[in-house]
Amino acid sequence: MIIIMRSDAKKSEVEEVIKKVENLGYEIKLFKGVKKTVIHIIGVSDRSMIRKEIEQLSGVEKLVSILQPFKFVSREFKKDDTKINIDDVNLGGDEITVMAGPCAVETEETLLKIADIVKKAGAKILRGGAFKPRTSPYSFQGLGQKGLEFLAKAREKTGLKIVTEVVSVEDVPIVTQYADILQIGARNMQNYSLLKTVGRFNKPVLLKRGISATIEEFLMAAEYIVSEGNPNVILCERGIRTYERYTRYTLDISAVPVIKNLSHLPIIIDPSHAAGDWRFVSALAKAGIAAGSSGLIIEVHNEPEKALSDGKQSLNPSNFKKLMEDIKAIAKAIGRDI
Amino acid sequence: MIIIMRSDAKKSEVEEVIKKVENLGYEIKLFKGVKKTVIHIIGVSDRSMIRKEIEQLSGVEKLVSILQPFKFVSREFKKDDTKINIDDVNLGGDEITVMAGPCAVETEETLLKIADIVKKAGAKILRGGAFKPRTSPYSFQGLGQKGLEFLAKAREKTGLKIVTEVVSVEDVPIVTQYADILQIGARNMQNYSLLKTVGRFNKPVLLKRGISATIEEFLMAAEYIVSEGNPNVILCERGIRTYERYTRYTLDISAVPVIKNLSHLPIIIDPSHAAGDWRFVSALAKAGIAAGSSGLIIEVHNEPEKALSDGKQSLNPSNFKKLMEDIKAIAKAIGRDI
Amino acid sequence: MIIIMRSDAKKSEVEEVIKKVENLGYEIKLFKGVKKTVIHIIGVSDRSMIRKEIEQLSGVEKLVSILQPFKFVSREFKKDDTKINIDDVNLGGDEITVMAGPCAVETEETLLKIADIVKKAGAKILRGGAFKPRTSPYSFQGLGQKGLEFLAKAREKTGLKIVTEVVSVEDVPIVTQYADILQIGARNMQNYSLLKTVGRFNKPVLLKRGISATIEEFLMAAEYIVSEGNPNVILCERGIRTYERYTRYTLDISAVPVIKNLSHLPIIIDPSHAAGDWRFVSALAKAGIAAGSSGLIIEVHNEPEKALSDGKQSLNPSNFKKLMEDIKAIAKAIGRDI
Amino acid sequence: MIIIMRSDAKKSEVEEVIKKVENLGYEIKLFKGVKKTVIHIIGVSDRSMIRKEIEQLSGVEKLVSILQPFKFVSREFKKDDTKINIDDVNLGGDEITVMAGPCAVETEETLLKIADIVKKAGAKILRGGAFKPRTSPYSFQGLGQKGLEFLAKAREKTGLKIVTEVVSVEDVPIVTQYADILQIGARNMQNYSLLKTVGRFNKPVLLKRGISATIEEFLMAAEYIVSEGNPNVILCERGIRTYERYTRYTLDISAVPVIKNLSHLPIIIDPSHAAGDWRFVSALAKAGIAAGSSGLIIEVHNEPEKALSDGKQSLNPSNFKKLMEDIKAIAKAIGRDI
Repeated sequence: MIIIMRSDAKKSEVEEVIKKVENLGYEIKLFKGVKKTVIHIIGVSDRSMIRKEIEQLSGVEKLVSILQPFKFVSREFKKDDTKINIDDVNLGGDEITVMAGPCAVETEETLLKIADIVKKAGAKILRGGAFKPRTSPYSFQGLGQKGLEFLAKAREKTGLKIVTEVVSVEDVPIVTQYADILQIGARNMQNYSLLKTVGRFNKPVLLKRGISATIEEFLMAAEYIVSEGNPNVILCERGIRTYERYTRYTLDISAVPVIKNLSHLPIIIDPSHAAGDWRFVSALAKAGIAAGSSGLIIEVHNEPEKALSDGKQSLNPSNFKKLMEDIKAIAKAIGRDI
Repeated sequence: MIIIMRSDAKKSEVEEVIKKVENLGYEIKLFKGVKKTVIHIIGVSDRSMIRKEIEQLSGVEKLVSILQPFKFVSREFKKDDTKINIDDVNLGGDEITVMAGPCAVETEETLLKIADIVKKAGAKILRGGAFKPRTSPYSFQGLGQKGLEFLAKAREKTGLKIVTEVVSVEDVPIVTQYADILQIGARNMQNYSLLKTVGRFNKPVLLKRGISATIEEFLMAAEYIVSEGNPNVILCERGIRTYERYTRYTLDISAVPVIKNLSHLPIIIDPSHAAGDWRFVSALAKAGIAAGSSGLIIEVHNEPEKALSDGKQSLNPSNFKKLMEDIKAIAKAIGRDI
Repeated sequence: MIIIMRSDAKKSEVEEVIKKVENLGYEIKLFKGVKKTVIHIIGVSDRSMIRKEIEQLSGVEKLVSILQPFKFVSREFKKDDTKINIDDVNLGGDEITVMAGPCAVETEETLLKIADIVKKAGAKILRGGAFKPRTSPYSFQGLGQKGLEFLAKAREKTGLKIVTEVVSVEDVPIVTQYADILQIGARNMQNYSLLKTVGRFNKPVLLKRGISATIEEFLMAAEYIVSEGNPNVILCERGIRTYERYTRYTLDISAVPVIKNLSHLPIIIDPSHAAGDWRFVSALAKAGIAAGSSGLIIEVHNEPEKALSDGKQSLNPSNFKKLMEDIKAIAKAIGRDI
Repeated sequence: MIIIMRSDAKKSEVEEVIKKVENLGYEIKLFKGVKKTVIHIIGVSDRSMIRKEIEQLSGVEKLVSILQPFKFVSREFKKDDTKINIDDVNLGGDEITVMAGPCAVETEETLLKIADIVKKAGAKILRGGAFKPRTSPYSFQGLGQKGLEFLAKAREKTGLKIVTEVVSVEDVPIVTQYADILQIGARNMQNYSLLKTVGRFNKPVLLKRGISATIEEFLMAAEYIVSEGNPNVILCERGIRTYERYTRYTLDISAVPVIKNLSHLPIIIDPSHAAGDWRFVSALAKAGIAAGSSGLIIEVHNEPEKALSDGKQSLNPSNFKKLMEDIKAIAKAIGRDI
């Protein structure tokens, strides 16, 4: 059950309400929005009693019952789509936002080249891993802070925003310092320490679905972030693990309409990791847009055959350019911009 | 290994080649196309010997080595897309073909109503089950021949072609008599007796992917039909079984580009059985078209809430009309007709 | 809802009850057991009305409400384990029954050799495919009737019972003539024509779980057979399809206790098809017995490396002998015989 | 490629070898075993050159090529089973070790009661979560350090060793202080920061398989720990996610023989989380032992119906006692102790 405080509620009124709820034997989770403070009462059994006791307290606007296990991220809690603005980039509205770049940041020169290519083709955000989670301890683990610096330079030169992954709690401060969007990878979708930590910063978070996470678990992971106070979560469907072998993962395209139905958060598609093969990336990207996705995150490399990781699934510059044109046409056909 | 005979090869030349191959100890599979006869030599170990022995025989155009386990359905065997024409309906080319109608044929009146609705919205083919495979022996099993007759009446009145499922070998002759396209359902994708039987008729076959079939097994099932002499196979992706529960199955949208890469056969999408929920059908249908599908098969009912089966996943008339308009816009954006 | 007639109910009393039920607007499914006749009323909405109308009719012993979607195969319908006796072989009781033999029947000589080996090691039933369902139309499809004759000879020589697969409706009569147990393979688990056909014979049926069938669907498939009048169904867990690649399928060992909880039918394990690798077969077989399985079906070949199919997963004679000894020890430890 | 140094190799010799390898352009991973130091050369392309250059250096015993992507945990690296001794408890040898206890530590009183019960029944290790990873941020998250203290008291009173989960890097020191075995849960199997951190302590680690991890990924996760210097890893199969719904996860019993084939590390089974239902736990536990598992980890509660979490899957005292007796009988039958 959720108590929404009036926008002009005083601090003392909020405290009064919390005290009352705790006296009734419940734990709470406090969420201070930009406009309003919200109090989530955990595990309410007797709803009518709570309603009776709380509704008439001063400063309370209303009480909302949310039946879904996820609360702050649910449509029941907030009807309108969440829009996330990073300067002039608007995610979650009519506009389609494309994030593109290499799997891993390799050298400054390569990164700047790729940044330039994706910028010209119409991408708004540059992707690139500085801290890489790898299945093998013996694989290239990323450039670390050096990589973050290269990303910052690319931003400076091109005006692109940057999104990059953070893989451990201790790296959150440094990554936050450089990135415009913090990425939480699929392997860490249920790394609750990490989720809570990024939930305490105000930086937008790109949360990737775990390779075998249900949509409910995916939204619960988002809830971990939002319930810590950071409402700026972008969800990303990147394929789930199935028995099929022609693709690396199976893109669950249905996740787009399902999540739009359950949650107000923006949802984008990662066709590169899903397909694992550049030949299928464009078809999946177009499908994502037609299905209603808010954007895409795509691996692009100036020379895919020389990439240090994931070259096989990276688009080369001309294929990326062609894809952007196709997407523009589809976006227009369904009444959206890019 | 495949021997392609010249288009003017005489019957005696074909026989001579077969005799030669059999004398070399191999079994063959004969495929008489409209223009050319093709001989598949099964399990060749010594390719160069075969080449030497056969290439110079009279009537032989060329020998082709096909590495894929599926032969006649592979792109290696035939580069150009297969187009299937049923009078004025053209499947597999630039045109997008929509099949629509109820899950099961219920009454003549209802069927005619629905046929009229889908026709007006732009569908070219009417779907409807007369023989229904059901998980429970106690569920409604379809109207049988009566259902076929109703379908024929609907065709007469509207000009729509009809597609309907055949569930057992003994029903193939009767269903063939009424239907324009024979559907093989997901449960029967590896019912080899049934595949071989429909392979001996010349009627187009809509083959649905098994709920856990790999794409390779799916194409091997098509190979069973084509290797019996019927090249008119339409593949249909209808969702695979995964752990996710918000949808009945997980539409494997990647199957569209993957199959177009591996095979010359047309591939369409069934968003209704994949989603299992009408609210998600339109998004999946649009995704299918954007991904390059040749068409769609969609459940539509005039009163979904009263349908005898699958009402939950059926579009009502106005949602179907809206979807057709959206698809037209997307089709146009990607340079295709509908 | 199920009406159980008294064991001394007259034919006219049964007919009277059926007439009454049909007059109330319901369809029925009649099941004539050895001792009692049972009438399944399909899709009852008003249970108390039915009870009132039927309970007092002459010949009626009692009415049973079964909540599971499967009826005759459920524990609710029949509390005691079903025991299937084929002469001196008893399946479903305390005894553990081992079926063993080659994947496919190859030659008479090989079959007799293998039969002899498995007999000596303690198997009671000889397995071997005469009609083989194969993913590729170009793979060895089995010897057909010739294979059945070889099996019959092996039975004659060794006293082993035989189990062999039937893959199409038209082959049921001939296979029934030779086999002691008819096997329905995983691909045909939802081939309803085939299920109904074997349901009309009295021969025991070994029903394999489909590679992606839920346990509920598996039991519904058994219900198709039993509701046609054949109560002698043996269920077989043979691995389900997952993402894991070190084994061909993932043996769902939990299916043993789950099915024993839901149904009175015997359940056995096929470790050979699950593992797809002889090195893991013995561990799975032992696990199956410890989990409470009624038996095993195992691929054994005198020279696995020369087998025409599935050699990789076949045990050689000495490994099979060792396995039988291990199983005997485990069986004894859990209070069972072999 | 792995360089194994002689047991009497001097520090300077080790340094000399490392310098040589690095001069050849390779990175290394150093592993200091109790008896020998091992140097892993990462990503060798020219094996014969390395062999020539390194083999004759002083202090080098031999070079080993390991083809598996996992190195230190592979059978190729170490033939003999790894045995992990915690005082008188021996894991990985002939003995079967049972870990049992509540899902979460709740109160001191309850914990002591349960500890007493499992000790008497024959368990050697007490399980119980103090830090609980939960899908929902609103679920009970465990008692934290308080829980660790209760566990320590239970150890003091009963002599049982204790295993408890660590969910974040910052908790590793405190948990290490109390626990005899650190558990890494399924959700954190690819939390590489956490894996590396526990790899730097010498405490045995119980590593659970991710719900959708392949066996290869599972062993790679173990490699992360071992390559940091901690060889004491116990693997735990706890069920993988599939489409089946009668059980919470599908116990991949095949993982036992497969992992024993690939790795020298001990592997145990968690039947409680796999089944998610106490009625099926005993059958799975027995199957695990028969398949060759080194042990079991089982949820036991004195009053399962009152447990704060996972009560549904917890055995009550009498069922646990019965299970231990059954396991003893099976263990004896397969020549093992408990």
